[in-house]
Amino acid sequence: MDQRVSFVTLTVRDLERSRRFYVEGLGWSPVFEDGDEVVMFEAGPRLVLSLWRRSAFDAELGLERGGGAVAGGVPPITLAQCVRSRAEVDEVLALARRAGADPVTSAVDRVWGGYSGYFADPDGFRWEVAWNPGPLGQVVLPDAEVE
Amino acid sequence: MDQRVSFVTLTVRDLERSRRFYVEGLGWSPVFEDGDEVVMFEAGPRLVLSLWRRSAFDAELGLERGGGAVAGGVPPITLAQCVRSRAEVDEVLALARRAGADPVTSAVDRVWGGYSGYFADPDGFRWEVAWNPGPLGQVVLPDAEVE
Repeated sequence: MDQRVSFVTLTVRDLERSRRFYVEGLGWSPVFEDGDEVVMFEAGPRLVLSLWRRSAFDAELGLERGGGAVAGGVPPITLAQCVRSRAEVDEVLALARRAGADPVTSAVDRVWGGYSGYFADPDGFRWEVAWNPGPLGQVVLPDAEVE
Repeated sequence: MDQRVSFVTLTVRDLERSRRFYVEGLGWSPVFEDGDEVVMFEAGPRLVLSLWRRSAFDAELGLERGGGAVAGGVPPITLAQCVRSRAEVDEVLALARRAGADPVTSAVDRVWGGYSGYFADPDGFRWEVAWNPGPLGQVVLPDAEVE
């Protein structure tokens, strides 16, 4: 598995409040927004910081207490690595399974047009392995140009 | 405040177990290690992923339940931004305070040779603002060369 983080996602309770803090308070500029669901910022070369509405995060990852590898549920963040193809998603998830990751969820087609699955590291931190054909999925790949 | 993440730090319960997972399991190579305290990986251009022993994290950030902005305590990660000087650390913390961050902890000298303080975003996620004179603190700065 490449040694790369492409996205850092934080789950937020009130997306509008968080947007105000980062945009008006800290002076950041979003690179992508989708209504009351998500706000994304370029946070480095090939890196995106994403703020994601908690209910959507919960629905995809299961934050419910008792359901995760860590006492109290799944940690309220994900790290993601974007890869170049659907096949590479499956390969990395298989590697994680061999490495002892538990749980590993098989990849599925996502409404945003990509294909991804998750594995948990030893502390329950979820890594999403994603093939993302959209523009943001491409700029984070290792051969994308950086300033 | 620059729109950048320099370090992503995950708190881990058993550093040796986590190290095995990332190094032997996933095939990653550490860029820095300090005994049973911390293991760091370059995870992108100007980005470091750090695994930090939970007791050390707790001592610095206070993971104790009831002590943080979020029910259940401080989230078990930090994001950090490295800046160029002590003065810039203080400036960014002042900006965060004006933006409504709560709590904001004044910067102090750190045993690793730098100077840093923390602010909490609206969900309690802790940002460390750090001047780090060491090699890792330099390679994550915006004008550092990337491949």
